[in-house]
Amino acid sequence: MANQTLRDTRAAPYVIGMDLGGTKILAAVVDVEGRILAEAKRETRADEGPDYVIKRMAQTARKAARHAGIDWTTVTGVGVGAPGPIDPESGFVYNPPNLPGWDEIALAPRLSEALELPVFLENDVNLGTLGEHALGAGQDTKDMVGIFVGTGVGGGLILDGQLRSGFRHAAGEVGHMIVFADGPVCGCGKRGCLESVASRTAIERDIRLGIAAGRKSLIPKLVREKGRMTSGVLARALRKGDPLTTEVMGRAQWYLGLLTASLVNLIDPEMIVFGGGVVEALGNDFLTPIRVTARQYYIQQAGADRVRIVAAQLGDHAGVLGAAVLARRRTSTDPGVARG
Amino acid sequence: MANQTLRDTRAAPYVIGMDLGGTKILAAVVDVEGRILAEAKRETRADEGPDYVIKRMAQTARKAARHAGIDWTTVTGVGVGAPGPIDPESGFVYNPPNLPGWDEIALAPRLSEALELPVFLENDVNLGTLGEHALGAGQDTKDMVGIFVGTGVGGGLILDGQLRSGFRHAAGEVGHMIVFADGPVCGCGKRGCLESVASRTAIERDIRLGIAAGRKSLIPKLVREKGRMTSGVLARALRKGDPLTTEVMGRAQWYLGLLTASLVNLIDPEMIVFGGGVVEALGNDFLTPIRVTARQYYIQQAGADRVRIVAAQLGDHAGVLGAAVLARRRTSTDPGVARG
Repeated sequence: MANQTLRDTRAAPYVIGMDLGGTKILAAVVDVEGRILAEAKRETRADEGPDYVIKRMAQTARKAARHAGIDWTTVTGVGVGAPGPIDPESGFVYNPPNLPGWDEIALAPRLSEALELPVFLENDVNLGTLGEHALGAGQDTKDMVGIFVGTGVGGGLILDGQLRSGFRHAAGEVGHMIVFADGPVCGCGKRGCLESVASRTAIERDIRLGIAAGRKSLIPKLVREKGRMTSGVLARALRKGDPLTTEVMGRAQWYLGLLTASLVNLIDPEMIVFGGGVVEALGNDFLTPIRVTARQYYIQQAGADRVRIVAAQLGDHAGVLGAAVLARRRTSTDPGVARG
Repeated sequence: MANQTLRDTRAAPYVIGMDLGGTKILAAVVDVEGRILAEAKRETRADEGPDYVIKRMAQTARKAARHAGIDWTTVTGVGVGAPGPIDPESGFVYNPPNLPGWDEIALAPRLSEALELPVFLENDVNLGTLGEHALGAGQDTKDMVGIFVGTGVGGGLILDGQLRSGFRHAAGEVGHMIVFADGPVCGCGKRGCLESVASRTAIERDIRLGIAAGRKSLIPKLVREKGRMTSGVLARALRKGDPLTTEVMGRAQWYLGLLTASLVNLIDPEMIVFGGGVVEALGNDFLTPIRVTARQYYIQQAGADRVRIVAAQLGDHAGVLGAAVLARRRTSTDPGVARG
């Protein structure tokens, strides 16, 4: 009954935005205004193989529609974010690192068959960027770069209002731009990528190395309370002035500033949006040193304060909202819907 | 008479492409097929101030038209490449480093008045990239990055067939992307920019430091013959197997490979075009190690051999041809001219 009331204030046709992660499947029913009516979540259980996971995805989408109290017939399309490599044109997934055995899987066509709806696939972080552009921090911009700092560092590019997918559908990998030639080994096996010096994994590594070498820190106590070194733990240690955390985080922020400057010097965008767990836990405090470093490294200083470096606004919903925006744009014939 | 014969085989209306450098002004008359009919060159004499230089630019343009044997009335527009910062919309130049005292100069409007023709301004290296895209190495591509290695390192971006100027008209500064955080001091006053480790200036610096420290090299003998350490001298030393030159150039190529990978991981373009004195002197030999390094650092390996890393084709003419393409596109109402 609550859902019924809710539905009446919100506008059909609906789309469903989905996120396929290594551990969980998310689905959200989104109205024409870009508002989430209801969500559903399930474990991915990737080890059971693609057939099983695609069936679970279909169930999760239908469950979200039930939670929203809407008729399935009012849903016009489904957008899906998945880890790359993917091909948005064919809707195929090619061996993503966190979905082992998913080699050349026709994800979008098969989900489309199961749901009897058009399904559109894109890289998950690209869709997070699209979400922030259409419905979050970047709403009034033409050109925007998204940088999401978590266990890795992902990103996406909006140029001239459009998501850039790339020639091989591989664009937006800001985490694997090299900022420190011959620097630390990255998860990708190369050295000196942004991710190797500025991800939460890199921050954790450096804090653990400091502690192992006998440096004093509040971190061990906070980790004992929380169970692991979450972004929240880092934020608390930083707010309490823990010197080791301050130094290690400051270094990560410095590298993020250098990368931001590289992006500005190359693309000259209007806005850089920072999201992900670390940024959410620390907010604007995290961005201030990034802004200071970046600006020092801009090659063109004229108009430097017009380049905005801001925090993401959609939190964990950026991905499903971006997926919904993708589905909305692809299924709509109304050009007014182009902005989501 | 020779010009007369030539003219008859080439097609009016013509455009004039110009390049305003710190030491010389170039002008070329270009036909609808993108062929150069004739050129003219004068010293800039920037110390005489903008009024004087703009008058010289007008004279150089008219001289090129005389050399081509064409009527001035068959020229429909003029494109001008100038060092940034510039504003392509207003046609103003803002204090470029190599034109001292040019603060807020209405270059395009004033040259337009002097020539009684529409004049279009863009960053010089952006126009070199546009030239290579429309008439040189990148003719069959949608997305291309140009990297020009000389005393500095400049560049430009073509995305979806269009030159990217940027939000502040500052895009394409690949030379000031940071590849080696806290590396050598760059000409821009910051550290670790590509230019600080891979320009001819950086190569010269490292060779001189090696020689000063007592390392043996063929370079001093070749420099005595040539007068200075030109790109040709570097190419000869490299071909003769000079160990110091091989090491220093190899390091520069490695950094260029890392930067190429960063560009591919971010933008995922179809082609990277390398131009400039060093590349021209060494050709494909110079590109092979760049290709090897870059490819190792691509985060998405799928389709890696479809990303082409090639040498520029237009040599010193890239800039004036790009300027001509700009003028052609801006003055033409025929969409078929969009490709120059």
